Parts: sequence; C-alpha cells; structure tokens
Amino acid sequence: MAHTEALKLDSGLHLGPITVAYQCYGTLNADKSNAILVCHALTLDQFVAETHPMTGRPGWWSYMVGPGLPLDTERYCIICANVLGSCMGTTGPRDVNPETGAPWALDFPMVTVGDMVRVQKLLIDHLGIDQLFAVVGGSMGGMQVLEWAAKYPERVFAAIPIATAAHHTAQNIAFHEVGRQAIMADPDWAGGRYLEQGTVPRRGLAVARMTAHVTYLSESALHQKFGRKLQAGNSLSFGFDADFQVESYLRYQGSSFVDRFDANSYLYITRAMDYFDLAADYGGVLANAFLGSKVRYCVVSFTSDWLFPTSEAKTIVHALNAAAADVSFVEIRSDKGHDSFLLREFEFFETLHGFLNGCAEIKGLPVAHLRLPDPCAPDHTDDRVT
Amino acid sequence: MAHTEALKLDSGLHLGPITVAYQCYGTLNADKSNAILVCHALTLDQFVAETHPMTGRPGWWSYMVGPGLPLDTERYCIICANVLGSCMGTTGPRDVNPETGAPWALDFPMVTVGDMVRVQKLLIDHLGIDQLFAVVGGSMGGMQVLEWAAKYPERVFAAIPIATAAHHTAQNIAFHEVGRQAIMADPDWAGGRYLEQGTVPRRGLAVARMTAHVTYLSESALHQKFGRKLQAGNSLSFGFDADFQVESYLRYQGSSFVDRFDANSYLYITRAMDYFDLAADYGGVLANAFLGSKVRYCVVSFTSDWLFPTSEAKTIVHALNAAAADVSFVEIRSDKGHDSFLLREFEFFETLHGFLNGCAEIKGLPVAHLRLPDPCAPDHTDDRVT
Repeated sequence: MAHTEALKLDSGLHLGPITVAYQCYGTLNADKSNAILVCHALTLDQFVAETHPMTGRPGWWSYMVGPGLPLDTERYCIICANVLGSCMGTTGPRDVNPETGAPWALDFPMVTVGDMVRVQKLLIDHLGIDQLFAVVGGSMGGMQVLEWAAKYPERVFAAIPIATAAHHTAQNIAFHEVGRQAIMADPDWAGGRYLEQGTVPRRGLAVARMTAHVTYLSESALHQKFGRKLQAGNSLSFGFDADFQVESYLRYQGSSFVDRFDANSYLYITRAMDYFDLAADYGGVLANAFLGSKVRYCVVSFTSDWLFPTSEAKTIVHALNAAAADVSFVEIRSDKGHDSFLLREFEFFETLHGFLNGCAEIKGLPVAHLRLPDPCAPDHTDDRVT
Repeated sequence: MAHTEALKLDSGLHLGPITVAYQCYGTLNADKSNAILVCHALTLDQFVAETHPMTGRPGWWSYMVGPGLPLDTERYCIICANVLGSCMGTTGPRDVNPETGAPWALDFPMVTVGDMVRVQKLLIDHLGIDQLFAVVGGSMGGMQVLEWAAKYPERVFAAIPIATAAHHTAQNIAFHEVGRQAIMADPDWAGGRYLEQGTVPRRGLAVARMTAHVTYLSESALHQKFGRKLQAGNSLSFGFDADFQVESYLRYQGSSFVDRFDANSYLYITRAMDYFDLAADYGGVLANAFLGSKVRYCVVSFTSDWLFPTSEAKTIVHALNAAAADVSFVEIRSDKGHDSFLLREFEFFETLHGFLNGCAEIKGLPVAHLRLPDPCAPDHTDDRVT
C-alpha cells in the first residue's frame, strides 16, 4: 500500500509518502469482520506463514497460522504488515529520502511503536476494515497490540499481547544500547551512510544480534541445547576458535542475521522499543490506557522468559483489572525463554485457539475444532543451529 | 616475584620466566599460619585495599579488608596476586615475548584457572607459607578458590568460594563469546597486534565491557538505580544520543574500562573462565574433586545473581556433601546481582567474619569482634555512575 500524504509522527516530524508492505492469508468475509492483524517482533516481518523470500525458510509463525490452526486461515483473514522503520518493504531508513535522492540513513525520522500502529491503521482503513476481529503479537508485536487496543479500542474486538510489557525496562534498554553501540562502533557503518559507500557493518551488526540472541533464550534452553558440548569431540583447542557448540551457534546467528537485516533499521526499531511506555501517554497510570475499553484481552507470558518476564504481564493484567476490562491471563510453562512464542508450545497453541474460538462465538463468526499441529513442521528457530 | 623456570601449562605449552605482581596487607606471623589469599575476579587486580595506582579509586574490597574488618589486617596477612594472563604486572599477552622481542599478543599461550592457581602456588612457596589459613574470592576468584582446595587441599585450611560455579555454563560462555567477538571485530584490534601498530581497540573493548556489565547487575538493581529515567529532564531526544540514564551509565562503564584494561588480557581471561570445569578433571564427578579433603568450606551465593545463581552454589555444596566435606552454605539476600560480592552487604560481611573467626579459633589464631564498616566508605561500584 502506498500512502501519499505525509504522516505526523510522535517526534513531531512528518513523513511521507509511506509504503506499507503486507501479506494476507485467508479471505476477508463479506462484512470484513474476520480480520486478524498479526504484529511482528523486532527483526521479523510480514512473511508469517509462507516461505521467506530472502532466507528460504518457513514463515516465522507457520505452525500457528494456516488451515485448522489457531489463526485459522479457513475462517479468518490474517494480515501482517512490515513495521515502519524496518527493511522488508515498508518505508525505513534504507529507502531513498525524496528530498536528497540518497538513502535516509540517520536522517530518517525516529519512529515509535505508536507510529508503527498509526501506519498499520492506515492499512486497515485502506482495506475497509471497520473493526479487527483480533490483534495479536509477541514481544515488540505485543507492544503494538497494547498500543492498538489503547489508542483505537473501537477498532479492536480482541487483543492478544504475548511475551511483552507496557514499557521497556532498564535492563531491556541496556541490552539494546549494547547492540546499537556495537553497530555504531563498526567503521563500515560509516555514520549510517554505509549504503552509499558500498559497505555493510557486518561485524557490528553480528555482535548486536549475538547479544540479543542470548537474551532470547533461557539459561535452561542453552544448557539443554548446548551445555558445555565441544565442537570437536572432547578436546579444547586452547585457542580462540569456537570450541564450544554454543559459540559456533551464536556466530552463525550473528552472521546469518547480517544477510537479512539492515543495520540502521535495527537501530531505529530497538529505539522504538526503548521509547515504548504506554502509561506515559496516560498521565503515568497504565489503567487509564484501558478505561472504558470493550476490548477482550488475553495476556500471555512464559515462565522462562527473563527478558519480558511474567511480572511484566501481570503489570498489564493489574492495569486491565483496575480499568474493569475483560481480561484472561495465561502463563505458559516453557523452558525456552523469550523465543517460546515462536516455538511449538502446545499449551500456547491451545490458549490462542481457545481464546479466539470463544471470541468468534461472541462475535458470530464460525468456530472450529483445533487441528493438532504437524509434529514434523519446523519450528521457526530450531533450524538455526549450525 | 620473578619465577625464572618455565612452567608447564594445562595446554601442554611451557611459559617462563613469569613475573607475579602481588600486594600484601597486614603482617605474616612467626609460623606463617595467618595468610589469607584473596583471588580476584576477571578484570580486578591485586589492589584489594589501597588506592588503585591507575584509576585513583579505592581498593575493590577496601570495606572487607582492613583493621577490624572481616579480613582483619591486624590478625591476618592478606595476599592478592594479579592473575596470569592479566595486565597489572603479572605476565600476560601485553608483555614481551622473549623469543621475538615483540608483545606476545595472541602468541601468548592459553591459560586456565588451573594455571592461574599454579602460579599463585609458586608465590605461596616463595613466601614460605606451608598452609594458607584461607583462600577467598568471588566469581572467577571463586573458581580459583575451588581449584586451590581441590588440587592442593593440604595447603588450604579454609576455602570461601563466593558467587561462583564449578564450571562455566552455556549462557556464561555465550556472553563471553559476544564480548570477544566485539573486540575482534574492532579493526584497531589488528589481529591482536594493536600495541605494535599503536592503536587501542577502544570501541570493541567498550562494547564487550558494556555487555558484561549488564550481566553483573540484576534487573531489579537496574530498575531501582535507573528505571526509565531520562538524562535531560522529561523529554526524549528522538535521536541516538543517550536518552536514558542507563545508557549513559553503560557508555561510561565501557569507555572507562578501556583506560584500565588490556583487550588481549580480556580475551585470555574470559577464555580461562569458559574452560573452567572442575569435575572434568575428576572423571566428570565433582564430588571426586573433594574426596578426603580436610578443608573447611563456606560457599556463598546471592539471591539476585543470575550469572552465577544459587543453583550453581548448591551444585558445589551437594558435591562437598557427597564427599563428606566440612561445608557451610549461605545464600545472601541481595537485590544487587552478581556484583553483590563487591558491595557493602552487611549479611555478607557478617558471614565472612563469622566463618573466618570460627576457623581462627580452630586453628589457634586470635579471634576478634567485628567492627562495623564505615557507612561513609565508598562501595567499589557505586561511584561508577555518571
């Protein structure tokens, strides 16, 4: 979708024209009441349930979105748009600044989660959808869900914020800042002008990704997956090559990320997450964000997620309770850390199915039995290991 | 101390001559039975209880070591040596390789915690001390304590491993690997030959330190200290300068570290920690490391330390129990994370005093009442904030 008018951003600056790249799965019904908007996380994109055109890997939520799955493409129309500031087709710092004819780089205006949602709303308006049946997303996607439900409650029937928080904590900000400093420390970043000088800040971006990746996994997941297992049998190299499998895995995570993600987009989107503080828009009282809301909420957290722990989910739930909102809360037992929402956790699968089915019944949409996920379907992250 | 003979290292390589830089506080008694060896952590050094010659800051354990303090310099002789591979006077990769006349850099042989302790034992032999009254240390210092007690049990009367583990976990290795990759990604690192080309890998080393620093603090400590507090009043900059106080703090931690620590030493010492796996030397059974040991152990952990959590301390305690060793275990309630052992936690203070006093009584050394710490004395880390 191309939006030709300039949009006023939270920073006060205007940005336009804006391109929004999105994908749909399933068919919009006659009264356009069966749309589910999926909001993606930091480095993910709109390729939710199909092979990724760049990486050739399965869609990042392909076990959750499809015929007979919780986000059932036989009943719902699933929409996912690449977020503003990203690099998979929606306008971002890699695009050309029409005023200069050169890539925006750091001249791109700072964007916020609010701006991302503002752009998604342009798309939903464009598609003629009055009310989204549901908005769902994990991590930064969950922030967008909260923003949608708070700012446009009449446009949202049900909201499912997953593995997320109503604000970024000091520790979250700290890890993001490490990543940004790693990118900016790379001479190939060139003050953000790497596209024009034909370089890629590979090393800095890889280090940023490695740091982030450790925070996405639980200690227990790392222990079970790698422990202290060595790359080459039982012998240490007494050198700085990757002796441990976990080192090799991380190096692969870093280097493969560079091939699919833009360094400046990483700076912008991590910053947007850091800036997110929903209560701040409501006088510092989170409950005020949800006052009078008719949205049905299902808040989901995972026991081993230390980046967005259950305590943050409970903060959201308490605020929703204080606002007398309709809220379910489920803490899923999982040892896989923050990434759990991308993996095949059956209890999670059942939770989304059950909640959406219940909402469908209330809204008069078809309900259906859950089809069990294909046990052979690949998890999003499991094939990352080298 | 200069040790002129070559020492055989765990890698099988030989290293020599070796210089050991150490400091003493208090006086060795006539039968040399009152020596306490303090083993320092990764980036710390021998300046335990005096102003640091490079940074001008108080000794890193000055609230713990001194007259009337738990490590009482009126009764004990406190010894601390800079570890092998470091950069504060003991032989390390910054020193000149006698065979080439150039700095060792990555030609320096890989060192292990076992090698560090081997070198400390040369010092203790040199000082004519038959048995250390106690060996005490936190984090990597705690690994050295375990190594001392396991390998030279007859030379240790009491052992106090603090905030440590008998092996480095996959998550620990992962965070270290991120730091090493950040250093090696810096072109100024120059394959380790930065001294010869007159550069310093400032940016890479700073990023490594920033990453590590986040892991030293608890989420709660970061929240209490910084939360989402902004640098400049209440307004966001909508740019990439340090908006949040936690960002500014981290940047300062990174840049000040570069002035006091050598990048190659950081590579070597993190690697030594990663390699540490005491059980591996004993057929994979940790208890075997302590069989028949007469050493008195006091194992200490901190509730909010997620880098070396209490579960790791309990693994040590269970192995000691299985070996029928004499062991006390104290988990200190603290919200300050891994760095708690460097901070003024009164319960910790009392624990060390009580245990050492009890051991002194058994060994026939003088006992004394605890003098309360000066509430105005600076914590090691508190003055780091910008």
